[in-house]
Amino acid sequence: MLKYNVTIIGVGLIGGSLALSLKDSPLINKIIGIDTNEEGLKKAVSSGIIDTALNLKQGVSDADIIFICTPLSTYSTILNEIKDNLKTGVIVTDVGSTKQKVMQLYQEILSDEVIAIGGHPMAGSETGGLEGADKYLFENAIYVLTPFNNTDEKYIDILKQVLSATGAKIKVLEPVQHDFTVAIISHVPHITAAALVNLTKGNPNDLMLAAGGFRDTTRIASSNIKIWEDIIFTNKNQLIPALESLINILTDYKEIIENNQLKGLSEYLTSAKTIRDSIPAIRKGLLPSFVDIICIVPDKPGIIGQVGLLLGNIGINIVDIEILRAREGDGGTMRIGVPTLKDAEEAIKKLSKENIKAWLK
Amino acid sequence: MLKYNVTIIGVGLIGGSLALSLKDSPLINKIIGIDTNEEGLKKAVSSGIIDTALNLKQGVSDADIIFICTPLSTYSTILNEIKDNLKTGVIVTDVGSTKQKVMQLYQEILSDEVIAIGGHPMAGSETGGLEGADKYLFENAIYVLTPFNNTDEKYIDILKQVLSATGAKIKVLEPVQHDFTVAIISHVPHITAAALVNLTKGNPNDLMLAAGGFRDTTRIASSNIKIWEDIIFTNKNQLIPALESLINILTDYKEIIENNQLKGLSEYLTSAKTIRDSIPAIRKGLLPSFVDIICIVPDKPGIIGQVGLLLGNIGINIVDIEILRAREGDGGTMRIGVPTLKDAEEAIKKLSKENIKAWLK
Repeated sequence: MLKYNVTIIGVGLIGGSLALSLKDSPLINKIIGIDTNEEGLKKAVSSGIIDTALNLKQGVSDADIIFICTPLSTYSTILNEIKDNLKTGVIVTDVGSTKQKVMQLYQEILSDEVIAIGGHPMAGSETGGLEGADKYLFENAIYVLTPFNNTDEKYIDILKQVLSATGAKIKVLEPVQHDFTVAIISHVPHITAAALVNLTKGNPNDLMLAAGGFRDTTRIASSNIKIWEDIIFTNKNQLIPALESLINILTDYKEIIENNQLKGLSEYLTSAKTIRDSIPAIRKGLLPSFVDIICIVPDKPGIIGQVGLLLGNIGINIVDIEILRAREGDGGTMRIGVPTLKDAEEAIKKLSKENIKAWLK
Repeated sequence: MLKYNVTIIGVGLIGGSLALSLKDSPLINKIIGIDTNEEGLKKAVSSGIIDTALNLKQGVSDADIIFICTPLSTYSTILNEIKDNLKTGVIVTDVGSTKQKVMQLYQEILSDEVIAIGGHPMAGSETGGLEGADKYLFENAIYVLTPFNNTDEKYIDILKQVLSATGAKIKVLEPVQHDFTVAIISHVPHITAAALVNLTKGNPNDLMLAAGGFRDTTRIASSNIKIWEDIIFTNKNQLIPALESLINILTDYKEIIENNQLKGLSEYLTSAKTIRDSIPAIRKGLLPSFVDIICIVPDKPGIIGQVGLLLGNIGINIVDIEILRAREGDGGTMRIGVPTLKDAEEAIKKLSKENIKAWLK
């Protein structure tokens, strides 16, 4: 069996997680890490995340597959620095959030003897630190590949085989199709979250009432701004028409409300609810679905542990858990996900016996 | 000390939670419940949530304070049915999500001898069922009161004193100020979430990539449609200009991107991030803040319990917990919130000793 030398440029959350998920694969010979943060890189070697740390030019010269895991704005510089040190037939790929501009850079900078295949694993972010690296970060995540139309299928298959160790769901798309879709499901929602916050003008009275839902739904407005500027400008072509469509839809809503068109509002809201409800909740892992119970627990150190043990002792595994409300000195309300309805019913029985109020969500 | 007879019309999530939070207050004589769902009402009596179940006209005749906890669209009918059965000096209040129209109904339907004070506890929703009733639902939530300008301060104080048992933070606002603020922090975000989903047109390929963040940020698009139609149309006057402002901001973004104005984009995004980061995360309870650690745990029944006990045994209380990623047969990544940095450091030490990888978030 062939074994590949992998080089990862940028050993942060994404690069580190990739290394961890690939390191035990029988397809991998060694993993070389490159990063401007030398201390982090040393840590990555000492903790066994990568095999060797090298500088940019040395680190790529022996590579069969190169993953660029740095922010989009660095790609051009990196490609120019490495282009003369690459083996013939090396696969160069990346994890950037937009793909058309990246493919253009590949075309412009790299020689025909380099196989460039765009990539975008839809988990984590390019700015997270190495300490969050997790071999399962990509498991069940969608991992988009955007090869050129004339790329030999053989190379795409090699990359797919290597990436299978991540547990991600690989999906091959045209770069433009990828960029259109992420404009709609990621970039426009991001700008909209920021715009909703801008709308408050930071008025403290308004924000005092905003502590709950508003804070949650605008969470992405707190992301790293530099990264988002890169994403927005590199996806300008897809983003502008998508933003225009959203503005048109919002204008429709406004006119429907202005004209008291209950039927029109109902149709729009119903369509949104139907579509939203059809989106699979795959993010949280392999388990395709689980059953939620709600319980009210007293507040004392270890109570979550005790609830977990109560259920563990009767063979019920908690696959999801969330504290809905908590208050000091007086318990809280928790949501607990278990694999099956039978588990949920047994859990409720067990908890009730212990005087913990519990019911099916 | 005076003791008040309280009548709750609509004993669901909100009405039931109000009853539970008020029932042990020394200011309360008895709590009467009214609901069209007779079975639920019986359950509310048998489980001690309310003292007595009565019909609408009988239930209000002896009341000192009446809480209307039904959907907005029912207010007019209810007020017309009860208006001739009210004691002089009774306080009538409600929990509706908009206030100007409600105050107008009070003015039109009720006599001058009734003290109408609008209310809006910003927790839960009018459609949740009684089984979710929780005496702490309102704790630390903002509870807005909107009296008429000429309402005697004495009555507002009585309502405040009675509501203090809920643990909510009472805030008196003009109805128009309330409606303006909720338009910006709740109603416009709701419509926007729906519009973002509408933008996808339900295209399955796009939605497959939407499983993660998009699904989370559009969660409110899955809410009860009937309730939202009521809210939107009753707050039309504040909602339309707020929607217009959002459309203008989005148009600004579009033009800034079109014209490659990096500085303009940066200013908008930075302003949004600064404002968003300043919103207090008070929803989850009394604890003003906590420190998060991340840990990677093996997957086995009871593991959450074991982690909880490990920490409980050394006196560390888990105040928040969330499973970030989980996979069957291979563990998961959890976020655990503890009260202090010292707790977090001790927890990490303890977990590491047990070979559970953990670090500060």
